[in-house]
Amino acid sequence: MAKYNIVLLPGDGIGPEVVKEAVKVLQVIGDKYTISFNFTEALVGGAAIEETGDPLPKETLELCRTHKYILFGAVGGPKWEDLPRDKRPERAILDLRKKLELYANLRPAYLFPSLAHSSPLKEEILKNGIDILVVRELTGDIYFGEPRGREALEYGYKAIDTAVYTSREIERIARKAFEIAKKRRKKVTSVDKANVLETSRLWREVVTEVSKKYPQIELNHQYVDNCSMQLIKNPRQFDVILTGNMFGDILSDEASMLIGSIGLLPSASLGERDIAIYEPIHGSAPDIAGQKKANPIAAILSAGMMLKYSFDMPEAEEQIKKAVISTLEEGYRTPDILREGDLPVDTETMGSLIAEKI
Amino acid sequence: MAKYNIVLLPGDGIGPEVVKEAVKVLQVIGDKYTISFNFTEALVGGAAIEETGDPLPKETLELCRTHKYILFGAVGGPKWEDLPRDKRPERAILDLRKKLELYANLRPAYLFPSLAHSSPLKEEILKNGIDILVVRELTGDIYFGEPRGREALEYGYKAIDTAVYTSREIERIARKAFEIAKKRRKKVTSVDKANVLETSRLWREVVTEVSKKYPQIELNHQYVDNCSMQLIKNPRQFDVILTGNMFGDILSDEASMLIGSIGLLPSASLGERDIAIYEPIHGSAPDIAGQKKANPIAAILSAGMMLKYSFDMPEAEEQIKKAVISTLEEGYRTPDILREGDLPVDTETMGSLIAEKI
Ligand SMILES: CC(C)[C@H](C(=O)O)[C@@H](O)C(=O)O
Ligand SMILES: CC(C)[C@H](C(=O)O)[C@@H](O)C(=O)O
Repeated sequence: MAKYNIVLLPGDGIGPEVVKEAVKVLQVIGDKYTISFNFTEALVGGAAIEETGDPLPKETLELCRTHKYILFGAVGGPKWEDLPRDKRPERAILDLRKKLELYANLRPAYLFPSLAHSSPLKEEILKNGIDILVVRELTGDIYFGEPRGREALEYGYKAIDTAVYTSREIERIARKAFEIAKKRRKKVTSVDKANVLETSRLWREVVTEVSKKYPQIELNHQYVDNCSMQLIKNPRQFDVILTGNMFGDILSDEASMLIGSIGLLPSASLGERDIAIYEPIHGSAPDIAGQKKANPIAAILSAGMMLKYSFDMPEAEEQIKKAVISTLEEGYRTPDILREGDLPVDTETMGSLIAEKI
Repeated sequence: MAKYNIVLLPGDGIGPEVVKEAVKVLQVIGDKYTISFNFTEALVGGAAIEETGDPLPKETLELCRTHKYILFGAVGGPKWEDLPRDKRPERAILDLRKKLELYANLRPAYLFPSLAHSSPLKEEILKNGIDILVVRELTGDIYFGEPRGREALEYGYKAIDTAVYTSREIERIARKAFEIAKKRRKKVTSVDKANVLETSRLWREVVTEVSKKYPQIELNHQYVDNCSMQLIKNPRQFDVILTGNMFGDILSDEASMLIGSIGLLPSASLGERDIAIYEPIHGSAPDIAGQKKANPIAAILSAGMMLKYSFDMPEAEEQIKKAVISTLEEGYRTPDILREGDLPVDTETMGSLIAEKI
């Protein structure tokens, strides 16, 4: 019997509620495929600050390194907003990505046909569906470049951030995007701001170079400002969007809203080695925490991505997706996607309904 | 009789076509208000590169300094895409902004009721209209910070951009936003990425400080990734969006798409002194240049902003807006906003129809 050790990092806000439902689904999969999942929970984010003063305690980081497969909830909340940058809950997720070298963030935005009415976009734009995969670079750019900080001036301060990309960093994420595009609709849109930024010029050069090894994949380039329009105007034009850390943050959230709710979008953060983090892209949503209102679908689909990318069980992921689709088709909805005539359910019930269908 | 010197910088692609229509409208206003507008045309962008090798010739810059009021078309095109960053057409607009210290970029996104069907958003989201003013900082951030460039590594290159903001730079743009909000719906949403960036942390601190002098204005803060969602989900929540150069570039283009076409959005770039640039926010659109398909409304409304902000003629601006609204209500449409049953017109006809109504 296959055995996998999974680290659970529920974190803050709705994190624990949605991770619980994802675990429920993984357990059903485990029974079905006779795999034993061994779950170990650890502290992260605000929850970790409260207990230890550190958003990413050493034990948590060590556990992630040894157990490798990480299901992450969410971190952050108003309670910790005024802490300095290095002490905030968000530091935990940034440090995990950087220290575990998880440079490739995959964020699929797929429109469930039964949820087309929840999308803010007109039906005519949605008629051919939306099926975008944002491949976001996760360990470089303005998120980590040095120097960063502030210095005192005669009047006030001067603050500085530095964006850095090397050819090698761009090359490896580009290769990832092209490899994935092979198994999809064979189109990569690389997004940058090459008319202004030096990092973007290098980005465009290296991506173009890598593309030569993938003659079967169509490559086009868009400026980030144009892409933010094109996503709304004609989302169907996109298959794989390949972009840097900062633009990827903005564009993937924008894409998530097109499909109706950020509560639906999973993500995977991968590197060269085995270690990977799976995480719903919604945040901790402190305003609805503890009220059973959270949508667990993003977390459940994140567990699905773990099955596919870490355990090479694409059929199991497919089963989860199908269970989600048929639960939505039956009309069950958490509050974020509820409309007149739907069947309202809470977080736990949604999780159970999906789990039962597997 | 009042006399104003206006510099026309038509530039590339559809720039010359739309600037021509804006001039047509200004001439009608001149007759009506007995003002003499004296237009002087100068080279900029790709057009200037072809003639002089320089995207912003010295004579053009000097003319802008002395004549002060600048109507700008658009720059750029595939022909010049492979030039190094410092020689590209885009350099012209970046240098104009920086050298003339035009730090405040106002980008209104207003939904014309008769164009609600052209918006990609569902009717229910549009029912209370969209009326957003993006106030974008224009001379700082990652657009201009030093160092920037690349260095050779053993393998490939390392490229660097630097984002910089000083307290003073943030303060002056914040003050501008609050002053403008006073005359609008009295709400400012400041957008940053304070959970990651040092420049954003300073941004948030200074904006909060400035807001204390404006107790009648409601201030809230959003992260840029969240704002890119909120714009689509509920654009009505926004009055004035105050943000930096890079995020402002992305968010203002996103906002423009919500109202149906980027061919509708004007902008003003202002500083402490009299000099100002008025510019449609669409680009040079080389794919439709010379085909009479361009929508001149953005350029015409930009001329309207000139009347308001440079010549203190808000009634004249109102008249232009009304002429645009009634032309649209009569059903006339350029191709970008054309739908079944509309009356198709070309660039010149649209300009004339609007001019006649003033
Ligand atoms: C919490 C924050 C640091 C993070 C990011 O910007 O990467 C989040 O927005 C995300 O997209 O995962
Ligand atoms: C052409 C480009 C340099 C410019 C910018 O990014 O500022 C444009 O996109 C704009 O928004 O005016």
